[in-house]
Amino acid sequence: MHGYTDRKQDHLKRLRRIEGQVRGLQRMVEEDKYCIDVLTQVSAANRALQSFALALLEEHLAHCVAEATAKGGPEADAKIKEASDAIARLVRS
Amino acid sequence: MHGYTDRKQDHLKRLRRIEGQVRGLQRMVEEDKYCIDVLTQVSAANRALQSFALALLEEHLAHCVAEATAKGGPEADAKIKEASDAIARLVRS
Amino acid sequence: MHGYTDRKQDHLKRLRRIEGQVRGLQRMVEEDKYCIDVLTQVSAANRALQSFALALLEEHLAHCVAEATAKGGPEADAKIKEASDAIARLVRS
Amino acid sequence: MHGYTDRKQDHLKRLRRIEGQVRGLQRMVEEDKYCIDVLTQVSAANRALQSFALALLEEHLAHCVAEATAKGGPEADAKIKEASDAIARLVRS
Repeated sequence: MHGYTDRKQDHLKRLRRIEGQVRGLQRMVEEDKYCIDVLTQVSAANRALQSFALALLEEHLAHCVAEATAKGGPEADAKIKEASDAIARLVRS
Repeated sequence: MHGYTDRKQDHLKRLRRIEGQVRGLQRMVEEDKYCIDVLTQVSAANRALQSFALALLEEHLAHCVAEATAKGGPEADAKIKEASDAIARLVRS
Repeated sequence: MHGYTDRKQDHLKRLRRIEGQVRGLQRMVEEDKYCIDVLTQVSAANRALQSFALALLEEHLAHCVAEATAKGGPEADAKIKEASDAIARLVRS
Repeated sequence: MHGYTDRKQDHLKRLRRIEGQVRGLQRMVEEDKYCIDVLTQVSAANRALQSFALALLEEHLAHCVAEATAKGGPEADAKIKEASDAIARLVRS
């Protein structure tokens, strides 16, 4: 059980849509579609992945991190550090 | 025929791998994997999509844009503008 | 008093270095330096700004957000939402 | 003489405004402004730097790269590669 479990169906729906976008990209390349149109679709898929990540992160902060910080101690610090590292990876990816 | 046509198989291989990453994300969510591990995989998929986009863009500059600028005229300007807009979408996504 | 107050001198030092990078960019443009070299410096300044933001955000989570979540209630939820929105702006900028 | 020379004054104006934003950030930190407000300003400065970079890049493509590709040969390929690398640094920063 994690923070995102109660919104699992939403997340799966989002991810299936992103999978569809990536399959759409394959179709575009197979049919020799114009590069710029392919790039536009890549940007859309990227944004969709980021929105999914941001939703997941918000739930993680609201559940896992909030529970740890409510208890305090080194576990709380570790959770903050772990979340910050994940945020840094997202910002830089 | 576009700039990327001769590397079509490479691009399709990359995109199938990205599709696999997105399906892997669905499995992780279904199995209630830890949020941070899911986020790490999202960052990896995002980077893979960007690498694909950058490879496509380089080919587009080397072929479509280079051909247009070799001829010059308003068509060349339009191609430069179009490529710049696609780059801006990538940078901001 | 905020989370970052005890590392204020570090932050100011970082920001003065970034100011120096932006002034360096002005000098490069004034001296007609090669576009690609200017762009390399822009990427460096961007990364420095992001590192500053990520350090600030980590402190914010460790202090302001952790205090609010330790108390719980609607104030905690509001802090999580506010931090998530700031993360989204960083990821998308 | 580079592609951006005729818009030099515009670029310098933009960069001076960004310098002002970074100095504003220092003032905010000195006056212990709220972390989230500081982060909002960082996102604004980041976006301003990126817009500057994108404007510069468009000019670079329209001038330096277009001239090289009009001549063709290994010099043209080198310019395309160099521009693509700069775009990759921007996308990833």
